[in-house]
Amino acid sequence: MKIDKFLDGLTVGYDIPALPGMRQEEIVTPCLVIDLDRLETNLRTMGDFARRSGVKLRPHGKMHKSADIARLQMEIGGATGICCQKVSEAEAFVRAGITDILISNEIRNPLMIDRLARLCAEGAKISVCVDDPDAVTQLQEAAVRHETTITCLVEFETGGRRCGVSTLTELLEIARAIVAADRLDFGGVQAYHGMMQHIVSYEDRRSAAIKSIQHANAAVEMLRVNGIRCPRVTGGGTGSYAFEAGSRLYTELQCGSYAFMDVDYARIEDESGRRCQDFDQALFLLTSVMSTSSAGRAVCDAGLKVQSVDSGLPLVHDRDDVAYVSASDEHGTLTDPYGHLAVGDRLRLVPGHCDPTCNLHDWYVVMRHGRVETIWPVTARGKAF
Amino acid sequence: MKIDKFLDGLTVGYDIPALPGMRQEEIVTPCLVIDLDRLETNLRTMGDFARRSGVKLRPHGKMHKSADIARLQMEIGGATGICCQKVSEAEAFVRAGITDILISNEIRNPLMIDRLARLCAEGAKISVCVDDPDAVTQLQEAAVRHETTITCLVEFETGGRRCGVSTLTELLEIARAIVAADRLDFGGVQAYHGMMQHIVSYEDRRSAAIKSIQHANAAVEMLRVNGIRCPRVTGGGTGSYAFEAGSRLYTELQCGSYAFMDVDYARIEDESGRRCQDFDQALFLLTSVMSTSSAGRAVCDAGLKVQSVDSGLPLVHDRDDVAYVSASDEHGTLTDPYGHLAVGDRLRLVPGHCDPTCNLHDWYVVMRHGRVETIWPVTARGKAF
Repeated sequence: MKIDKFLDGLTVGYDIPALPGMRQEEIVTPCLVIDLDRLETNLRTMGDFARRSGVKLRPHGKMHKSADIARLQMEIGGATGICCQKVSEAEAFVRAGITDILISNEIRNPLMIDRLARLCAEGAKISVCVDDPDAVTQLQEAAVRHETTITCLVEFETGGRRCGVSTLTELLEIARAIVAADRLDFGGVQAYHGMMQHIVSYEDRRSAAIKSIQHANAAVEMLRVNGIRCPRVTGGGTGSYAFEAGSRLYTELQCGSYAFMDVDYARIEDESGRRCQDFDQALFLLTSVMSTSSAGRAVCDAGLKVQSVDSGLPLVHDRDDVAYVSASDEHGTLTDPYGHLAVGDRLRLVPGHCDPTCNLHDWYVVMRHGRVETIWPVTARGKAF
Repeated sequence: MKIDKFLDGLTVGYDIPALPGMRQEEIVTPCLVIDLDRLETNLRTMGDFARRSGVKLRPHGKMHKSADIARLQMEIGGATGICCQKVSEAEAFVRAGITDILISNEIRNPLMIDRLARLCAEGAKISVCVDDPDAVTQLQEAAVRHETTITCLVEFETGGRRCGVSTLTELLEIARAIVAADRLDFGGVQAYHGMMQHIVSYEDRRSAAIKSIQHANAAVEMLRVNGIRCPRVTGGGTGSYAFEAGSRLYTELQCGSYAFMDVDYARIEDESGRRCQDFDQALFLLTSVMSTSSAGRAVCDAGLKVQSVDSGLPLVHDRDDVAYVSASDEHGTLTDPYGHLAVGDRLRLVPGHCDPTCNLHDWYVVMRHGRVETIWPVTARGKAF
């Protein structure tokens, strides 16, 4: 690495990992690297699929937390807006110019509801999920306070066992309360089944999806017979999107991980029992070998503080000769039976789970044809309120 | 919660979770909360122990990443400086006024070695570990470039199977190279056995510690018979510190987690097979219940993006009636068999593993006697280079 060139651009405390034009060996690690060709292909693939299927695509910004990627999703990936999970996350996107956002989650803290209403009053197009009549009251009061209107969807629990009402009676009660609130717009139903996304077997995933869609259908039917039109049914993830898209019920997909992919999503199978090939790995955790002092193994600089191992350890991309076998706070241990690794070698790790891994980083290093093309901030990194 | 009071202090985009004087119910969640009385007690306990044992205490800043806590460790906790794992982390501490730092890790990236030398040239007292003769050359060159001196310790692998040389021959070779380099000072030996810290059984932990100390002793002896004085033997963690302190070999302890504690460290046992009671839990992940829509369970706002579950799920502090049973990106699922939980209820979670959990947050909310006393930034959050 040419230190002088690097030092021209980086000074102490200026913690960006790379400059445009650098080769992979020059990047300071550990950091996240995006293969831009692959990212663009993934975005176009999902965008084309949604268009062909006649559903809208509202990719999940909670995964990448990047305004630059959200913009790319809208420019080349067929997206009509994005999803977020948190108000502070939505604020970060709005400040960066992404203003059409579904908060696909319940917001119950009074301050954060107030901030949500403020975003709407400032002209952002924000909608939010509700699974409790009390939340309708809170949201209405905040909308009145800020002289604005908030769009609310009822979240219906279709097997994911997280938030959302699980009975049709509650669903109807909340929908009616939203319709009756003069400062709230009824936006439809969210029915997202998170756990199902990760079921490896195609058949098992398909049956879970069918059950989930049947539940969602019952919800929409319940509203219809009670005279409430449901303008939107939203849900679907990278593991199940084709089922929701083909349901003739869902109007919008919320997939997130398709843009980057990870070890966990790469495990799921297609109809013929093979690993699903819809999307390519576009996100990598770039790491450097920092010690080879013991025969048969090496230590790299990517540990628990730069990746989440909740869904398992990372894979070493494009290398059969070495394996990442354990993680401590700042170190990863690799087996290196052939002694191939040397200090300074860069390895691309495929993260076990992309969402919480991206949330650990401040920057994406964006590469094309072996060179850094640009770097993007992780706009909403750490926005957890 | 009094929204108006809160809105006076917080505006959109101003992402601090609390203001001084607030009660727990007013804090925006999820966030980290410190029980200041307990933290101070933990710091004094370890400081008193080190003083009585005649060893220096250099607590690990990689755990809390907070300049305020480092300062408290030096003011009331007997610390003579701190440890860090990364140059960028050390830079953050130096900028915040903490200038006596051992980087208890190998630094091999040329840019980061250059930044390390620059810190020394600016007057900070930085030492660093080495396990490869090439690193000695790199460090010497950087010290020459910045007209400074860098203190280097040889890391000796005593069973932890991470970095560090594992033979006495290599140890001697590197120590000699450091002694011979005119811009490097030989600082001694680091012998830290990370894995051993978490062994639950006292006897098993003790035998691992004895073996590790024997290895370290052989290292110091090897240097002595070859005429190299070893000014410092550093190591020891929250699980093993009493063994190193009683070894008559170690001169310095590097414990970190004792300040906060976590579920993993609370599992380890003392001599009589009981859970070790040396330190009290001082760190909590404060979370709010956000959905109780299904009987028997509740959903809280603390998921994988605000805690690391590598060492297991968090425990709910001081509650036998509810349990945290699963984590997704932004949600935690709780069993609530008695229906005790209501939306907005605050729960204090004990993180499974404190270090990578703290690294996810920007702020500590510091509480005493039921009120927020202050908030501290997580000074070196995300500093991974």
